[in-house]
Amino acid sequence: MSLQNKSDNFSEWFDRVLQKAELVDIRYNVKGFIVYRPNIMFIVRRVYEIFEELLMKKNHKPALFPLVIPISNFRKESQHIKGFEEEVFKISEAGGEKLEEALFLRPTSETAIYPMFALWIRSYKDLPMRIFQSVAVYRHETKATRPLLRGREFLWIESHCAFVDEGEARKQVEEDLEITKKTFRELGLPFLMVEREPYDRFHGAVDSYAFDTLLPDGRALQVATTHYLGQSFSNLNVFDIKFTDKDGSKKNVHQTCFGPGVSRIVAAIISIHGDEYGLVLPFDAAPTQVVTIPILKSGKEDTIMEKSRIITQNLSKAGFRSILDDSEKRPGEKYYKWEMLGVPIRIEIGEEEVDGDFVTLFRRDLRARERVKDGKVVKRVSELKTLVLEELGRRAWEIFNSSIISINSKEELFKNKENVKIVRVPFCGRKECADEIKAEIEGMEVRGKRMDIEEKTSGKCFWCGREAVRIVYLAKAY
Amino acid sequence: MSLQNKSDNFSEWFDRVLQKAELVDIRYNVKGFIVYRPNIMFIVRRVYEIFEELLMKKNHKPALFPLVIPISNFRKESQHIKGFEEEVFKISEAGGEKLEEALFLRPTSETAIYPMFALWIRSYKDLPMRIFQSVAVYRHETKATRPLLRGREFLWIESHCAFVDEGEARKQVEEDLEITKKTFRELGLPFLMVEREPYDRFHGAVDSYAFDTLLPDGRALQVATTHYLGQSFSNLNVFDIKFTDKDGSKKNVHQTCFGPGVSRIVAAIISIHGDEYGLVLPFDAAPTQVVTIPILKSGKEDTIMEKSRIITQNLSKAGFRSILDDSEKRPGEKYYKWEMLGVPIRIEIGEEEVDGDFVTLFRRDLRARERVKDGKVVKRVSELKTLVLEELGRRAWEIFNSSIISINSKEELFKNKENVKIVRVPFCGRKECADEIKAEIEGMEVRGKRMDIEEKTSGKCFWCGREAVRIVYLAKAY
Repeated sequence: MSLQNKSDNFSEWFDRVLQKAELVDIRYNVKGFIVYRPNIMFIVRRVYEIFEELLMKKNHKPALFPLVIPISNFRKESQHIKGFEEEVFKISEAGGEKLEEALFLRPTSETAIYPMFALWIRSYKDLPMRIFQSVAVYRHETKATRPLLRGREFLWIESHCAFVDEGEARKQVEEDLEITKKTFRELGLPFLMVEREPYDRFHGAVDSYAFDTLLPDGRALQVATTHYLGQSFSNLNVFDIKFTDKDGSKKNVHQTCFGPGVSRIVAAIISIHGDEYGLVLPFDAAPTQVVTIPILKSGKEDTIMEKSRIITQNLSKAGFRSILDDSEKRPGEKYYKWEMLGVPIRIEIGEEEVDGDFVTLFRRDLRARERVKDGKVVKRVSELKTLVLEELGRRAWEIFNSSIISINSKEELFKNKENVKIVRVPFCGRKECADEIKAEIEGMEVRGKRMDIEEKTSGKCFWCGREAVRIVYLAKAY
Repeated sequence: MSLQNKSDNFSEWFDRVLQKAELVDIRYNVKGFIVYRPNIMFIVRRVYEIFEELLMKKNHKPALFPLVIPISNFRKESQHIKGFEEEVFKISEAGGEKLEEALFLRPTSETAIYPMFALWIRSYKDLPMRIFQSVAVYRHETKATRPLLRGREFLWIESHCAFVDEGEARKQVEEDLEITKKTFRELGLPFLMVEREPYDRFHGAVDSYAFDTLLPDGRALQVATTHYLGQSFSNLNVFDIKFTDKDGSKKNVHQTCFGPGVSRIVAAIISIHGDEYGLVLPFDAAPTQVVTIPILKSGKEDTIMEKSRIITQNLSKAGFRSILDDSEKRPGEKYYKWEMLGVPIRIEIGEEEVDGDFVTLFRRDLRARERVKDGKVVKRVSELKTLVLEELGRRAWEIFNSSIISINSKEELFKNKENVKIVRVPFCGRKECADEIKAEIEGMEVRGKRMDIEEKTSGKCFWCGREAVRIVYLAKAY
């Protein structure tokens, strides 16, 4: 099995890297459910940590709500139940007996959390309320499942907030986008930040915003969304979440919810940075950041081993996750293994290195060697922490940006339909056009308009020729 | 509502402290499922961390297996299915359609994990294999549910290991007990480490060992168990987990599984250390370790605030989770709040403290004040980190030890049945006796024989008068 086909056959490359690096096991005997193996768990836990730290710094508090949600909770918000009823797992029996009321496994937790908000929020002094939980959610996807990308059990964080008014709630949406941006930068991942089209909003949302990244097969991957919910869930007829304001009046809160998809972000790290030798991890996501490999020469074993140990220890003391691979394997086997696992830096120490008071340092991102004087190793690795991230980010953004093309007519899109990845077009904003595009260009979707810059258009809709109201981006998506 | 009845009416005290300290909410509308609020989440996460760190230090690797387990996996081990079939939640429908095979929510994960072990383990070089996951498990308890103590969703860690032979597996059991002991010491909690009676083993285990602690109402709480499974799950007829040994022969692995109950350990911290003012937390489990409260005096506000800020910062720099409560409330309200939340140290700074270059330090465990010179605050808090833990442990062990009484006859037990908590008795080892005791002394159970010391007996079974084979401990239990 080869890994030499990431760009030609991404799907095959992805399955193989998951298997060869022992990241997940897809042989669990329930469709759409995978096993996360130890090699991926560090990355998963690290992505969780990055988000959790950023959320807590912004006064979001951790909580944990039940996995099961009574159907009656779900039915309270009519859009919401419509959106999810076709993909929920349902428990109607326990201990051999039928339950009085059937329970859903959480596909998302609005309807578990908001009834509690209604109990907890009394006064404007209780606001803003910001709660998050780090959990798995369950959706019985009917589309083809793919490990990490589209599963029936997927890992995410969901943050739910309540505010006195729309202005504060909308500021929260900005903050959610900012937190996602920071995380993506720490991981060297490119993204397009879009506002979803009105007909493509989260069930129950007033406005929906999303982070899309791009996988090597040219398909967009939605990795996080944040929504301004307005009072859809807090109004009298749904969960009636109200507070007494400063002036004594009763008001219903304005809400937001935010869901970064941890499984998908991990998939993006693997797919976007990986190459034909396996994973390529940024320092921050790497369980092992530096591996030292002694290249033993008969008669010099002791000095080579001693130097290897000292270098490993010095790096550990400096705060790096540094290990010495002193196993029985040949150096070549060790190189293969640690490259497959994406360790950012390898240090090779043999006879020449001992005699010359230097080490040979191998950068996984460039697959290039350099010599570093013994006394400079810690300093050089510290520099590389940033340089590797910059290089990964640079490459990823380069590919990402070169995957966006502007198109102004239906004909142009048809002509290029085999090659296009992200397409920038003037658009009329009508669902009818979006549906036609999707049907005629094999799953090509309107992903929305950019959030970070304002893009004006005075032209015609590229599809129907009616007046264009905005520039939007199209892509096939997971 | 008062908290002045922990020993008289523990159940009421417990419910009130959960509510007043905003730890959990029991109003979620599914019986046996609770909401973990932010105030308890730090403690929950910290207990997880302590175990995870100890496990990883001993080469256990994190993993994550699916929540759902096909019924056919469960049926493979006959004892196991018998043990759990009456308490599993069952999913037979998803997306509105009947599933081909019904799925159970994991009540424990042997039958999800061991089929994967069979795929992963090929050679003796793959052993030992040590895997753990930090998850919630689901059991449809028919006994009365109690928040944290007995729920239908509870938080735990489950560690599953495979070894070449029985000797190594049994060493793992020792290590599991050692890890639990260390954790309990870090939390100042007392325990009885017992081997369960043969008829009281985990479904599928050869030997079962348990950690029991004692709640203020005199009932034992099982907080962790570890099991030597032998080859019950690895044999040919169940999951057939085999490896090629050094000599080329095929053998089935020997297994262990270990489950510390995080929800219950958190309940033990709350119940055992708490008092009529609320939580009393050891430093390690406290989200806030030191709270500084300025006592403003008109004309001196600035100097009092400045000193309060400096002290808070110095403690933060020294690595303590230290906060300044500069909210609008009166000092008395702040004292009440932070005592309720169990913050180990409060520092009060008013006019006298500013003028005298000292602070008034309040220990939550003793509810006593002392004066500490400004320059000695960090040093004193560092000392107290250990002293508070020692004091909590000392008190808890004192109560625990004084709750154990030795009894030698049925009559003696009947006479004292209202007052006894843990009872030490010579026992014949027969299930018939255990069943009779439980029926006649309202739920009094044989918990097992002590693991840490060998206790010999040459007497008669206290209950039936037959020859006693060992000393065991009895208690009513959660």
